[in-house]
Amino acid sequence: MAYAILDEGLVAHVGIETTNGVIVMPMTYARLGNDVILHGAAASRWLGSLETGTPICVRVTLLDGLVLARSAFAHSMNYRSLVAFGAVTVVTDAQGKRAAFEALLEHLVPGRWDDTRQPNDKEIAATTVLSMPILEASVKIRTGPPKDAARDYELPCWAGVVPLAIRSDTAMADPMMPGERAVPAYAVDYRR
Amino acid sequence: MAYAILDEGLVAHVGIETTNGVIVMPMTYARLGNDVILHGAAASRWLGSLETGTPICVRVTLLDGLVLARSAFAHSMNYRSLVAFGAVTVVTDAQGKRAAFEALLEHLVPGRWDDTRQPNDKEIAATTVLSMPILEASVKIRTGPPKDAARDYELPCWAGVVPLAIRSDTAMADPMMPGERAVPAYAVDYRR
Repeated sequence: MAYAILDEGLVAHVGIETTNGVIVMPMTYARLGNDVILHGAAASRWLGSLETGTPICVRVTLLDGLVLARSAFAHSMNYRSLVAFGAVTVVTDAQGKRAAFEALLEHLVPGRWDDTRQPNDKEIAATTVLSMPILEASVKIRTGPPKDAARDYELPCWAGVVPLAIRSDTAMADPMMPGERAVPAYAVDYRR
Repeated sequence: MAYAILDEGLVAHVGIETTNGVIVMPMTYARLGNDVILHGAAASRWLGSLETGTPICVRVTLLDGLVLARSAFAHSMNYRSLVAFGAVTVVTDAQGKRAAFEALLEHLVPGRWDDTRQPNDKEIAATTVLSMPILEASVKIRTGPPKDAARDYELPCWAGVVPLAIRSDTAMADPMMPGERAVPAYAVDYRR
């Protein structure tokens, strides 16, 4: 289930300790086996603070629905949430970095990699890639209808679940693209 | 802009330092003036560790779109992200807790509060409410089409933005609800 949540999520919220306290950063990511792959510009100051061995906390939260109960108190959300702990390894070999690039892009938009110009040496050098083998993880899930107090079930208000998902609107072509090109299938009715 | 992001977001990712390191928790929240309001079960161990004065980091990330570039390297996301820092205050007075309940529910589903049975003393006692006055905040935003390297613009692949939003599917009535009741307007075509 931990892997399934990681594979479905779009952005991870990564917590690290800095000299100024805790900071939480939103990052795209990918899973390669038991490793969470993260990346960013090599010039990034915050990323540069993550050396091999730095402990981090990776949280991925999938929002599945609003749970509308009869009492304000019993309102909730349906969700699947994963938290994983480990220490980062800075990936330095070009082959490992290339594999990370592919995993990151295919995680974001499955099918996109083969349509793109793949990274050159300069781009690979300009990117910091981190790998976090998952040492410890836990999953929390809520599903199903509201759970109201027994006597609240006679109240007249509507109760139930409003399912939620991240969905796409119509793709917007880059104005710099000459002429008309068909929108690729993976960019239509995208859903996470 | 910081307030607008807070008001549009659904879930905050809250980072705190524990004796076992950093942990990031997903939490529903609300904004009341310059305060971020959080809550949870009084029995919750993790929430109990947040005493008045505990520093926390609150991150809210709105995912606005996938940015499909010509090169793998230039792929990105459009987003608006807020990070806020401060220290929590435990809200103990019943009136403040009631106001927090209303703000939290109206943040989640605007219009819902008046349709629900409002919290009683027992429920208020069973809930820990935290307020974090925002001491420091910063916002990061990406918008617009991909930015490819100059010579990549002649490549034949489709490029552009796939807009994203959190949207609802058809509401599912609680099976425990007797007979048919109209789905309230706020539960139809919900979008964040």
